[in-house]
Amino acid sequence: MRLWAFLLSVYWVSFVTYFVLWKSYKHVSNLRATARSTPDFKPEEFAVLVRDVPRSSPDETIKDSVDSYFRALHPNTFYRSMVVTDHTKADKIYLEIEDHKKKIARAEVLYANSKTESNPEGIKPTHRTGFLGLIGKKVDTIEYCSEQIKELLPKLEAEQKTTLRDKQQQAAIVFFNSRSVAASASQTLHAQVFDKWTVMEAPEPRDIIWPNLSRNIYERQIRQVVVYSIVFLTVVFYMVPITAVSAISTLENLRKVLPFLKVVVDRPAIKTVLQAYLPQIALIVFLALLPAFLMFLSKAEGIPSQSHAVRATSGKYFYFVVFNVFLVYTLGKTLFTSLRTILDNANIGVIINMLATSLPGGATFFLTFVALKFFVGYGLELSRLIPLIIFHLKRKYLCKTEDEVKAAWAPGDLGYSTRVPNDMLIATVVLCYSVMAPLIIPFGVAYFALGWLIAKNQVLRVYVPSYESNGRMWPHMHTRIIAALLLYQATMIGVIGLKKFIYSPILAPLLPISFIFAYICHMRFYPAFANTPLEVAQHELKETPNMDAIYTAYIPQCLKPDKLEDLDVFEDAQSHSTSRAPSI
Amino acid sequence: MRLWAFLLSVYWVSFVTYFVLWKSYKHVSNLRATARSTPDFKPEEFAVLVRDVPRSSPDETIKDSVDSYFRALHPNTFYRSMVVTDHTKADKIYLEIEDHKKKIARAEVLYANSKTESNPEGIKPTHRTGFLGLIGKKVDTIEYCSEQIKELLPKLEAEQKTTLRDKQQQAAIVFFNSRSVAASASQTLHAQVFDKWTVMEAPEPRDIIWPNLSRNIYERQIRQVVVYSIVFLTVVFYMVPITAVSAISTLENLRKVLPFLKVVVDRPAIKTVLQAYLPQIALIVFLALLPAFLMFLSKAEGIPSQSHAVRATSGKYFYFVVFNVFLVYTLGKTLFTSLRTILDNANIGVIINMLATSLPGGATFFLTFVALKFFVGYGLELSRLIPLIIFHLKRKYLCKTEDEVKAAWAPGDLGYSTRVPNDMLIATVVLCYSVMAPLIIPFGVAYFALGWLIAKNQVLRVYVPSYESNGRMWPHMHTRIIAALLLYQATMIGVIGLKKFIYSPILAPLLPISFIFAYICHMRFYPAFANTPLEVAQHELKETPNMDAIYTAYIPQCLKPDKLEDLDVFEDAQSHSTSRAPSI
Repeated sequence: MRLWAFLLSVYWVSFVTYFVLWKSYKHVSNLRATARSTPDFKPEEFAVLVRDVPRSSPDETIKDSVDSYFRALHPNTFYRSMVVTDHTKADKIYLEIEDHKKKIARAEVLYANSKTESNPEGIKPTHRTGFLGLIGKKVDTIEYCSEQIKELLPKLEAEQKTTLRDKQQQAAIVFFNSRSVAASASQTLHAQVFDKWTVMEAPEPRDIIWPNLSRNIYERQIRQVVVYSIVFLTVVFYMVPITAVSAISTLENLRKVLPFLKVVVDRPAIKTVLQAYLPQIALIVFLALLPAFLMFLSKAEGIPSQSHAVRATSGKYFYFVVFNVFLVYTLGKTLFTSLRTILDNANIGVIINMLATSLPGGATFFLTFVALKFFVGYGLELSRLIPLIIFHLKRKYLCKTEDEVKAAWAPGDLGYSTRVPNDMLIATVVLCYSVMAPLIIPFGVAYFALGWLIAKNQVLRVYVPSYESNGRMWPHMHTRIIAALLLYQATMIGVIGLKKFIYSPILAPLLPISFIFAYICHMRFYPAFANTPLEVAQHELKETPNMDAIYTAYIPQCLKPDKLEDLDVFEDAQSHSTSRAPSI
Repeated sequence: MRLWAFLLSVYWVSFVTYFVLWKSYKHVSNLRATARSTPDFKPEEFAVLVRDVPRSSPDETIKDSVDSYFRALHPNTFYRSMVVTDHTKADKIYLEIEDHKKKIARAEVLYANSKTESNPEGIKPTHRTGFLGLIGKKVDTIEYCSEQIKELLPKLEAEQKTTLRDKQQQAAIVFFNSRSVAASASQTLHAQVFDKWTVMEAPEPRDIIWPNLSRNIYERQIRQVVVYSIVFLTVVFYMVPITAVSAISTLENLRKVLPFLKVVVDRPAIKTVLQAYLPQIALIVFLALLPAFLMFLSKAEGIPSQSHAVRATSGKYFYFVVFNVFLVYTLGKTLFTSLRTILDNANIGVIINMLATSLPGGATFFLTFVALKFFVGYGLELSRLIPLIIFHLKRKYLCKTEDEVKAAWAPGDLGYSTRVPNDMLIATVVLCYSVMAPLIIPFGVAYFALGWLIAKNQVLRVYVPSYESNGRMWPHMHTRIIAALLLYQATMIGVIGLKKFIYSPILAPLLPISFIFAYICHMRFYPAFANTPLEVAQHELKETPNMDAIYTAYIPQCLKPDKLEDLDVFEDAQSHSTSRAPSI
């Protein structure tokens, strides 16, 4: 009787999950359509990103090649194009100038503050020109920096000219004079051969990873293979240190390994706390080191936009946490004793069996894991204690000008790349223990209910998004939740099978049902996420779009002439530079 | 030493196959681009097939819905649309009229021939109106049929009106005023929701399967699942009778089962021939029964064009022959003895092992199989002996009019649906035995070399293609050849492994290499087969296309008014029928 209830609960949980997933996908899909059909125009809606631009002859510039190709294929709708340039050097000079400007602003504030009553002249701020301002000649900051800027500006101007003329890359952003034409062009195969003129929807200007745009298709493929091999190795071999942490971080082991801790560890109050939270804290600290590495790998793949790189990172991180936290922590205790068994019988049946045996043992650990995330994680998130401390320290000792204080206060982005996979891990844990240790459900519900309120508050009132992907994160999360559900269903078949319950095969249909559900969702909702439907792109605009503003939005900071109004010369450079000549 | 040569040969054969496949794909791809960019226009290049048309309100016709939707999304390029109608009934009446016309023509010839010198009046041909012309009233054929036509014509006219107005289906063919717009529209996602307004390239007019166009997306999905289940069952359970044939059709068994054959079988000359060819003849006869069934299944899937249905049939048939001829015939002899072993250890290792053991035994069988196909098959193909006999019989006893003789002579289509998978089977057999029984190679080379000459001759001078798919069959064949290659490589690993040759794992990399090769080919060439690249569609036309002719090409025969010039009334019907009203 108890096993029957157990078995039916698995069905119940699965179907509730399907229902929630379906509703959410539909909801996000509608939100996306609404967001994309607003009467305000966005620059990316008129642009298409073109990669793998071929150079037909050595004396033709890439700009000419792009223009002639697109003007031939879209004679009435092509507006103009912008060739991607290698502006690393120009960017470096530009940042140097900006840095000097900041130094001047800072020095002026310091100078003004130093004018006290006793010393009405004030002290002119100085610094040393050598390494880190510690060695070298001592100079007057304001004078020195102004001179530097005067020297750098012509250099920047020259570099801009060279960049625009000689450093054109094999990629371009092509602008069309209507949203629906751009949407249609981004979905149409242009060239007969696959390795030339590949088109896709243009990312938002602030979302673009410029150096990745010009990588050609072969390089992208090879980089992807290499990156995925590295990720695979990382996921599999991070297991080794984590398993060690899991084995050591019981109090008994700790006392054995580090005998000097005995005094602390043996006090009853401390002992209780440590026993409950030590392994969890170790684990959380451990996981904090990874995202930056995975982000680096994702960008190395040649992905053209930040938002896509964040999704790629989040995906890698999710499979990492499931494999290394969930599986390894579950098997952790039995792992050392049964490593031989695994190595000798490395097949799926044995692994599911072993998982089923050891899963119940992990219940307490994961209950505390969810609780800890819930209490400590949300507390930190809401109070923003650490950013607050950092801000106050910065304001006291580092920030001098208004701008610096503003920069120190800036809350930044939401950090999808770690937040999403961590929430997905909680979802996985809650799903997998929902039937075996139902006590985890209220914690899970509380985690996500409160998480909804808190995240909503933080998104609306605290964080400043650095780009907008119109809900493209959702299909990605959807797939991962389905993966979690499949893991849950497979383990449950194992767990119930272990109890020699003859009706346990009744659970088997759940796995194909999940696959079919995933397929249907993908077919039903995904196309409108992958591409912009014409219906949506066709919506009326509030006003005629200012095509010049759209074009200007895509010019990288360091190549923008507006920032340097004092330089009339640059205006000329703009008009005869091939990359910025008006095309229509 | 011998095993090393063996092992290296497998690599050699694989790489030669890769090379040939790559070159062929490239060649076909270029041919396709050339064919699609000819200056002559084809109607399908200006059209897009739209399915799953929603009906916004009950009083709006589907025609209005299509027109308003496409005019909104393609304001400058939409030409007009043609809603698909359920014209089964009109078609029936139309065919009846045609049938009567034929009867009149035939009767007139008979009547003219009967006017001999002795009987200058001649005998008026008569027939009975009942079942098969055997029972019922005897009537004068010419008079009766003329009356029937007179009765049917107004009926047809009325039915055409009803069909065009009231039998509109949820599918349409939409015409654009340029090739590149149509190409682009067919690749662009139109609706936000997946189950409405699905677009694809329009098939050629004569290629369309009308009843399938109006099936909605859910019906198509469900039909596909059902059809694939039936195909799976067919592929697996056809094994049973084939195995029986293979076991029975040795002479010894035959003599035992059918003792009265003893007299024939024991003559040495007959014995030799029978021993060599009996199993092969049984197999070939057996296989002839299947294609029609698979074609029926493919059409039932809801595929919109004949050419696609032929590809689908060919695919099903290929997996059928590989599973049922190649695998079962190879395992055939050991199958009865080792059925228990398979059932007890149903895993992939055991099956590969068993295959490796029994493959060498099949060498002689398949050598004769290829030889038989070569000598008898090509002989029949070239001489077209059977069609010739049928033609002469028909001309002598059935055909009376010129048209009937022409129809009897018509050679028809090439019959891709059986020809392709049969050739693929030969390729599979030759690949799999190439290293083990190299004698098969000259036969294989001769088969395909002569096949090339013969097929070229037949295609250019004999067969009349009923549609043109511009080489879309090739990607399909490519995939099947790769499947054959994988089967070959897997078996070779088994065969060499069986000989306890410790270096046999050196072959293992071939499997991933084949997958990578298949992936690269698919990525490199397939997109230009799946969609028309803009580059190709943009080519200049020789003359301004006659949009009216393009539109007319898609009107089904039975709804075409031209056939019935005597009916002026119909012209009116055309102009106020919703489905054919000019849109621009």
